[in-house]
Amino acid sequence: MQDEVIENLIEQFRTLPGVGYKSAQRFAYSVIEGKAERAEKFANAIIEAKNKIGFCKICGNFTDKEICPICENRNRKIVCVVKDPKDILAMEKVKNYDGVYHVLFGTISPLEHRGPDQIKIKELLQRISNDNVEEVIVATNPDVEGEATAMYISKILSPLGVKVTRLAQGIAMGSDLEYADEITLSKALEDRKQI
Amino acid sequence: MQDEVIENLIEQFRTLPGVGYKSAQRFAYSVIEGKAERAEKFANAIIEAKNKIGFCKICGNFTDKEICPICENRNRKIVCVVKDPKDILAMEKVKNYDGVYHVLFGTISPLEHRGPDQIKIKELLQRISNDNVEEVIVATNPDVEGEATAMYISKILSPLGVKVTRLAQGIAMGSDLEYADEITLSKALEDRKQI
Repeated sequence: MQDEVIENLIEQFRTLPGVGYKSAQRFAYSVIEGKAERAEKFANAIIEAKNKIGFCKICGNFTDKEICPICENRNRKIVCVVKDPKDILAMEKVKNYDGVYHVLFGTISPLEHRGPDQIKIKELLQRISNDNVEEVIVATNPDVEGEATAMYISKILSPLGVKVTRLAQGIAMGSDLEYADEITLSKALEDRKQI
Repeated sequence: MQDEVIENLIEQFRTLPGVGYKSAQRFAYSVIEGKAERAEKFANAIIEAKNKIGFCKICGNFTDKEICPICENRNRKIVCVVKDPKDILAMEKVKNYDGVYHVLFGTISPLEHRGPDQIKIKELLQRISNDNVEEVIVATNPDVEGEATAMYISKILSPLGVKVTRLAQGIAMGSDLEYADEITLSKALEDRKQI
């Protein structure tokens, strides 16, 4: 037995990734219990982010400016290619990467009839010549579509004299060999390095 | 390197209970990636809840009406006394409880100089006579303050001929004896029941 207004707020919180009914309920109650000022700030932050955030003109990352702070401040000769703006977040955990990014907004997928024209490959080629890019690091996911996309990029960029690399694949650091799947293990064996 | 607008939205999500930076980041990105309509609905739900939700005039539960649906529809002769509106949520998981609630908005705590006058005890007494309450179930937490509050309520209500009960304390259902703490075990032993 719950009021519609509360139920509606819970439903909104449930639209967030990984949030079930119980967490949504806790979030809703925390808003209701909190100060009116906090609720207002929260609501404004949502509206403001949605209204002001667009895509960086150069790399496609989310930003409230024309050009994102990464493109503005870092070495544009090294470009890390990712599928989604979210993936930039993940890569940024690597503190000593000083290059920039390029968001493809998708991957090549023959099964879903998505070719190179449906993702931002043309824009990548443009950047290669504009910024004299020296290395393109392809950081698409290690799955079928990600691999196909990486292969395609390598095929069209290598003739231009650009070094194309791919994130190494193998067993995750700190993980247990016992739990590694066979495809990962076979890849790790294939790409073994002399020490 | 992140824009202020995004950082602000992440900060807002971090104010929710149990949400760390990484989850807040995922929530913020989901809002930014989503449709403008969804962001608007979300923001409105927060503002609407904060503006419309008040306390039930009878029990103190959150509601957007004068009297909450529980007080409106259920047996007012059985009153379950809880510390916070949140605790009503927990109790409502018990599907066959047909009584109503009374929120104390706190507990008696000699250490923090909080006596019976600082919590809604007077209002409880009022209800006892208004609704001819037959049983008061004290569902405060099984800690020092919760126990003190339960004792106090029992002391003032018993002379009025009201049956005062307390939630049973013992080992949690489905739990493992091995992991039960000694206070819980000693309480469970003390309150053992013939089978």
